[in-house]
Amino acid sequence: MPAQPAEDPRVGDLSEGEILRGILSGLAPSAALVGPGDDAAVLAAPDGRVVASVDTLVHGPDFRLAWSAPYDLGWKAAAVNLADIAAMGARPTALLVALAMPNDTRLSMVEGIARGLRAACDELAPGCAVEGGDLTVSDTLTIAVTALGTLEGRDPVRRSGARPGDVVALAGEAGAAARGLDVLFRRFRDLDGEPVPVAYDELDPGEIACVHTQLRPSPPIGLGPVAADAGATAMMDVSDGIALDATRMADASGVTIAIDSVALGPRRGWAVDGGEDHALLAAFPPGAALPPGFRLIGAVRERGSEPLLVDGEPYAGRAGWDPYRDWDSATG
Amino acid sequence: MPAQPAEDPRVGDLSEGEILRGILSGLAPSAALVGPGDDAAVLAAPDGRVVASVDTLVHGPDFRLAWSAPYDLGWKAAAVNLADIAAMGARPTALLVALAMPNDTRLSMVEGIARGLRAACDELAPGCAVEGGDLTVSDTLTIAVTALGTLEGRDPVRRSGARPGDVVALAGEAGAAARGLDVLFRRFRDLDGEPVPVAYDELDPGEIACVHTQLRPSPPIGLGPVAADAGATAMMDVSDGIALDATRMADASGVTIAIDSVALGPRRGWAVDGGEDHALLAAFPPGAALPPGFRLIGAVRERGSEPLLVDGEPYAGRAGWDPYRDWDSATG
Repeated sequence: MPAQPAEDPRVGDLSEGEILRGILSGLAPSAALVGPGDDAAVLAAPDGRVVASVDTLVHGPDFRLAWSAPYDLGWKAAAVNLADIAAMGARPTALLVALAMPNDTRLSMVEGIARGLRAACDELAPGCAVEGGDLTVSDTLTIAVTALGTLEGRDPVRRSGARPGDVVALAGEAGAAARGLDVLFRRFRDLDGEPVPVAYDELDPGEIACVHTQLRPSPPIGLGPVAADAGATAMMDVSDGIALDATRMADASGVTIAIDSVALGPRRGWAVDGGEDHALLAAFPPGAALPPGFRLIGAVRERGSEPLLVDGEPYAGRAGWDPYRDWDSATG
Repeated sequence: MPAQPAEDPRVGDLSEGEILRGILSGLAPSAALVGPGDDAAVLAAPDGRVVASVDTLVHGPDFRLAWSAPYDLGWKAAAVNLADIAAMGARPTALLVALAMPNDTRLSMVEGIARGLRAACDELAPGCAVEGGDLTVSDTLTIAVTALGTLEGRDPVRRSGARPGDVVALAGEAGAAARGLDVLFRRFRDLDGEPVPVAYDELDPGEIACVHTQLRPSPPIGLGPVAADAGATAMMDVSDGIALDATRMADASGVTIAIDSVALGPRRGWAVDGGEDHALLAAFPPGAALPPGFRLIGAVRERGSEPLLVDGEPYAGRAGWDPYRDWDSATG
């Protein structure tokens, strides 16, 4: 066995209980009826319904340890799942975290992930905490997070409710995460199979901001319920680029969505084609006052021959990120 | 690209939508308020609470494709999670499935996993269905399942409620899964790094039954709520062997648990040390009528110097399966 600092053991040399203690010390106190430590958590669902979603981050396609600190991973794993709950018009209440990791993972990494999970909950969805989880050995570091939430009496806002005449609005960043990923891939790609860390001192402030958004996205979680209360007819979080996600909303709703790309701001190209900002894309009835934080980016029309128009034209771009087409572990 | 049968494409050559269609065709119709296809599922939680647990199966430490058919994997991934819900005294209502798989995974494998998930729900927990999920690329095939359930007005049965004088009872298999794993490891272990499939014609009927229990465990899910209604004071599913899990219950409850190993039946050694039957271990008040399906295996005593006694002696055995101590991907 190789020498190692006593203060940062490999998880393979620890019991599950010892690892759990490291994790729990980084987490917020449980707010559940039954929190971590039993066979399952028991959570309040005060309006008789629970909103539930799962999303996974896998080392390789979804993150690289050369670029992301453990804290970043925890943050992002929480944020992308919180966004799915918010996109239904719900408030996140709990996360369950399944962590699969190689035996030579250091305890400090696990603790960093836990701190990132907590920080994202505290900042983006106060009151939400990690209430359960699972630890497994795997050759591939994998974080699968289940998020649960409450609609607090609201109707869920589905993808399928957009109606002709509605306006289309966006809350949150548009294109920064995709631009950040491009910076990472162009400047800090593996060299001769060796990972290359991010040299922030070689980047300008705009690039740094985009890289930060890619590594630690901050979707406007609290605006999900606000949009629902303001009458949103359809909503989803933008995980795969506005072109692909707006097309999904248009298809689910049986309408055509027309986007004005100028309204997407300075990174409009990245916003249309690239995902991972986890902004909230929503349709509102004509004449509805958009809630603060949402900006007008388009309109819903009767279904035409195309589900999506960008600046009046059928969109023939890359159409977002599909992990089963776009990622290849061989080329990285 | 290597030649492949057109009828069984690689998932890497399909879009996420195409893979999802294959999965959904194998699943039961949704019983949720909002089922698969939106950002999140919305599920009924009629008594204002939801029970939630997550468990992960990873290729290597948790299963091997040489031994498990895709159907088996789906079945087991469901069963182990359903058992966690049952162990709280709850009825499972929904699964969320995060599936991370290599690009060269065949669509037929994904469809087989879906069929196994459905079959386990239909057989073990009627009314429970897969209501959401996530697909990701990974070098390591990984299935993380979140199970949700309803207590239907019951109090949750925790690990910590066992009281001196209670009786200890077990429902379900005891030792078969561990014996089956031993058969697999002794007889069909990798040879020169090559996987070895199970030659069932070389096994006797008892061995075959144990291998089947290891690959497709059938915990008595419906007895979880029954035990709660019968007044169970503490309950958990046996995933790591009765010695380790009874010790956990004893420590959580501040008591000593005394097990009579003869009552565990013919595979008592496997039952004490080995897990994965996912039997239900429960404490009942003195004099309570044990529900059909539970058998008496021990008693709860005032806390002594040891948390666990087996046949009156402190237990000095292997103390169950701890993935972070016991598994080594190098030795397999």
